[in-house]
Amino acid sequence: MKRFVDLAELGTPAVRELLTLARRLEERPEPQALAGKVLGLLFLNPSLRTLASFQSGMARLGGSSFVITPGQGSWPLETRDGVVMDGTAVEHIREGLPVLASYCDALGIRAFADGQNLALDLADSRFAAMAALIDRPLINLESAINHPCQALADWKTLDELPAAGRRRFVLSWVMHPRALPLAVPAATVHMAAMRGMEVIVLRPEGFALPPAIMERARAAAAASGGSVSETTDRQAALEGAQVLYAKEWGSTAHYGDTEADRALRRGLTGWCVRSEWFARSAPDCRVMHCLPVRRNCAIADEVLDGPRSLVLRQAYNRLPAQMAVLHRLLGQ
Amino acid sequence: MKRFVDLAELGTPAVRELLTLARRLEERPEPQALAGKVLGLLFLNPSLRTLASFQSGMARLGGSSFVITPGQGSWPLETRDGVVMDGTAVEHIREGLPVLASYCDALGIRAFADGQNLALDLADSRFAAMAALIDRPLINLESAINHPCQALADWKTLDELPAAGRRRFVLSWVMHPRALPLAVPAATVHMAAMRGMEVIVLRPEGFALPPAIMERARAAAAASGGSVSETTDRQAALEGAQVLYAKEWGSTAHYGDTEADRALRRGLTGWCVRSEWFARSAPDCRVMHCLPVRRNCAIADEVLDGPRSLVLRQAYNRLPAQMAVLHRLLGQ
Amino acid sequence: MKRFVDLAELGTPAVRELLTLARRLEERPEPQALAGKVLGLLFLNPSLRTLASFQSGMARLGGSSFVITPGQGSWPLETRDGVVMDGTAVEHIREGLPVLASYCDALGIRAFADGQNLALDLADSRFAAMAALIDRPLINLESAINHPCQALADWKTLDELPAAGRRRFVLSWVMHPRALPLAVPAATVHMAAMRGMEVIVLRPEGFALPPAIMERARAAAAASGGSVSETTDRQAALEGAQVLYAKEWGSTAHYGDTEADRALRRGLTGWCVRSEWFARSAPDCRVMHCLPVRRNCAIADEVLDGPRSLVLRQAYNRLPAQMAVLHRLLGQ
Repeated sequence: MKRFVDLAELGTPAVRELLTLARRLEERPEPQALAGKVLGLLFLNPSLRTLASFQSGMARLGGSSFVITPGQGSWPLETRDGVVMDGTAVEHIREGLPVLASYCDALGIRAFADGQNLALDLADSRFAAMAALIDRPLINLESAINHPCQALADWKTLDELPAAGRRRFVLSWVMHPRALPLAVPAATVHMAAMRGMEVIVLRPEGFALPPAIMERARAAAAASGGSVSETTDRQAALEGAQVLYAKEWGSTAHYGDTEADRALRRGLTGWCVRSEWFARSAPDCRVMHCLPVRRNCAIADEVLDGPRSLVLRQAYNRLPAQMAVLHRLLGQ
Repeated sequence: MKRFVDLAELGTPAVRELLTLARRLEERPEPQALAGKVLGLLFLNPSLRTLASFQSGMARLGGSSFVITPGQGSWPLETRDGVVMDGTAVEHIREGLPVLASYCDALGIRAFADGQNLALDLADSRFAAMAALIDRPLINLESAINHPCQALADWKTLDELPAAGRRRFVLSWVMHPRALPLAVPAATVHMAAMRGMEVIVLRPEGFALPPAIMERARAAAAASGGSVSETTDRQAALEGAQVLYAKEWGSTAHYGDTEADRALRRGLTGWCVRSEWFARSAPDCRVMHCLPVRRNCAIADEVLDGPRSLVLRQAYNRLPAQMAVLHRLLGQ
Repeated sequence: MKRFVDLAELGTPAVRELLTLARRLEERPEPQALAGKVLGLLFLNPSLRTLASFQSGMARLGGSSFVITPGQGSWPLETRDGVVMDGTAVEHIREGLPVLASYCDALGIRAFADGQNLALDLADSRFAAMAALIDRPLINLESAINHPCQALADWKTLDELPAAGRRRFVLSWVMHPRALPLAVPAATVHMAAMRGMEVIVLRPEGFALPPAIMERARAAAAASGGSVSETTDRQAALEGAQVLYAKEWGSTAHYGDTEADRALRRGLTGWCVRSEWFARSAPDCRVMHCLPVRRNCAIADEVLDGPRSLVLRQAYNRLPAQMAVLHRLLGQ
């Protein structure tokens, strides 16, 4: 494994091997596996789980890590090509990234979507530009359109459920005060499709996932024997569902248009996951969310604090899943 | 030892054992004692000594640590229950804390007082709410009303003085431009009372320590053979004192009332510790302070730079004292 | 070696020994050399290379490090003597520095020039004041007038060039939107002079290096058999040059005068290194810069992205050069 940037690039057998390794590391720790290895972590956006779990994971494998947060103790970075750098940014990624890479054995990068240009964000242009600059194993800590660490941890979490055959997985849009990126919904729908689940994307009008994301998931489903569909009908979607995966994202009909997005969401405060959603047709349905979650906005207290919630398990699973990634990238 | 949040909870014998261990680790380092262990450090408020000494202490015992500073590279945390999170805070402690705990073997938390509601701060409500959310050994890195790491280091510092029997310990209010929390004065008066000292709280009118703090200290003094009293008479208090412990805190008569507090302190610039305080009746009196200290506002240069000062020794003692805590919580 | 604050203090033989050790550590890693050792890193100014490379270097030698960034998670520090601290700064370096030193085996400090008073900055007063407060091995991570870590890495980079005898080294002023400190130009001209090169300082009127810096470099050249001169004539300077070292700095004719400095630089946008500079008389000339560099302002894309550039190698060399420093300061 040369890098960990996209589950699709790895393929299902390699993903399953990673999860087997993750479970083995949970049972039999290898506190010296990465002795002497150094992981660089570059955060262009905030983090809690990723920041803490990667540092902890490297330490538990005997390695070390350092964290760089440009604009906060480090120089602000320029990403555009060809500009005359006479503004705020002090350093270009064309220098900053190869330099950081030269100080470590693997580099993780977080770079959220700009949220202005859908085509650029779907192409993951900024992350790809950064990836092209480094010659070390690379880990995607969440890019404009992908979050493979979360998807891998979620896959493990789903593996831990009592499962049988092809179960229904509902990815549901939920409320948030602002437009959020498409990285997690894109990674999630694709991950569930790779696992062969019956994937239903439930979202209000104006929030359909872009065709490129849906087609990519459908291709994965075609290979795995799963399926991918979408709807605005919550009751139909939840009928017999095993999992509701709640996630916030911005209006794709008005991508980058803050005002239009805000106008749309004014009528959508009902898209907060509540117990009553499950009462009739999905009593055993579990609820997932990648965190951070805004309580009583995206998911109600009663759900997060009840037995239906898997969110803490998902977050915990980041640790062993990523330790497997690190082990595979940097071990032996 | 399951957690380290309050010296009173431990009791005097356990405190003395910790200090014996601290001295042993100073003499005979154990660089592998915590190999493979990870300490999480969550700072909701600034730090220098705690931040540096815990990272150094874990490293010297062979372990590792990671630091999370919400709102600075990490998501701002919500602490209130039941709110609709449509404001600034992106994540609730009900998720954030269990998640962090799941990534480490012990978790340290710093959460200062809000300084608005005395009853809530005295009850240490916010720290207690956070402590209830985690299932790992917990270390109090300073809460609204306690600072046991400082108290333990100060105890060790006092143990290092030439001592005989029951000595006089004066906790003196000193000047600061703003109202500061009660955590250190509360922890200090209690620590000195636990040690069996003759504790005198010296403070201007309007700055009496709350009855709950004084009563708790008096109970400790009753058990140890010490005593606790209070006065506004500096000369009487310092008569034959072994130690003057200088500390800033907010007016308790006007808790949370910034204007009233400010008006009171306008006449109190004389509460800056100077050499002349000791000339007549306490020539050998040592001066302690937990740091950070505002020079020539709380304590004059002549005192801080002279032989009377113990402040650097107190700060140094944070390291071995906390290493003992880590060793006891995470060793074997 | 007691500290690493200035190449001149070490002398040429000790510098060459450090670089021999750096090359040895590149070839034969010593992953346990500094086991149990802790490096404190105090940054009063931003950093990327220094921040990442020192953490990585300690880890690769088996040690650990912690980072303190006052005003950002830690208390803002006061540096002036004798002030009444009733303003923003919460802690004085007279406490902060000895305390940090007591938590580590060596301490690195970054403290840029204030850029207001040339005499004070040339005397490196602030760094000297801090150095006087600590009793641990000290590393200069860039002070007002020196950057020995960069100079050591640059020396190694020059050693890697095909060299013969006494080569021409041109330190050229280049454009930047603002006045930058003199630390790197001062360290660079001195380093090249110590190596015995033919050093030419190329800069526009108003940007001559202060006599103290030039005289110090000339003294080093006198000892090494090199030479130091200055000019405003680019074509003459570059004639047959082996290296052009590009660097930005503030007007010394108007030190601390933002408006006058800005007025001077308005006419100097042509001081951006371009391929055409080398076409006629220095086709093989390599280009160095300490980074961060503002593309197309200080150096054009075509130069940074072409084979002439050594900037990434310089940055990489920070790691082995500093590992040698750490090894010498903290090993056995």
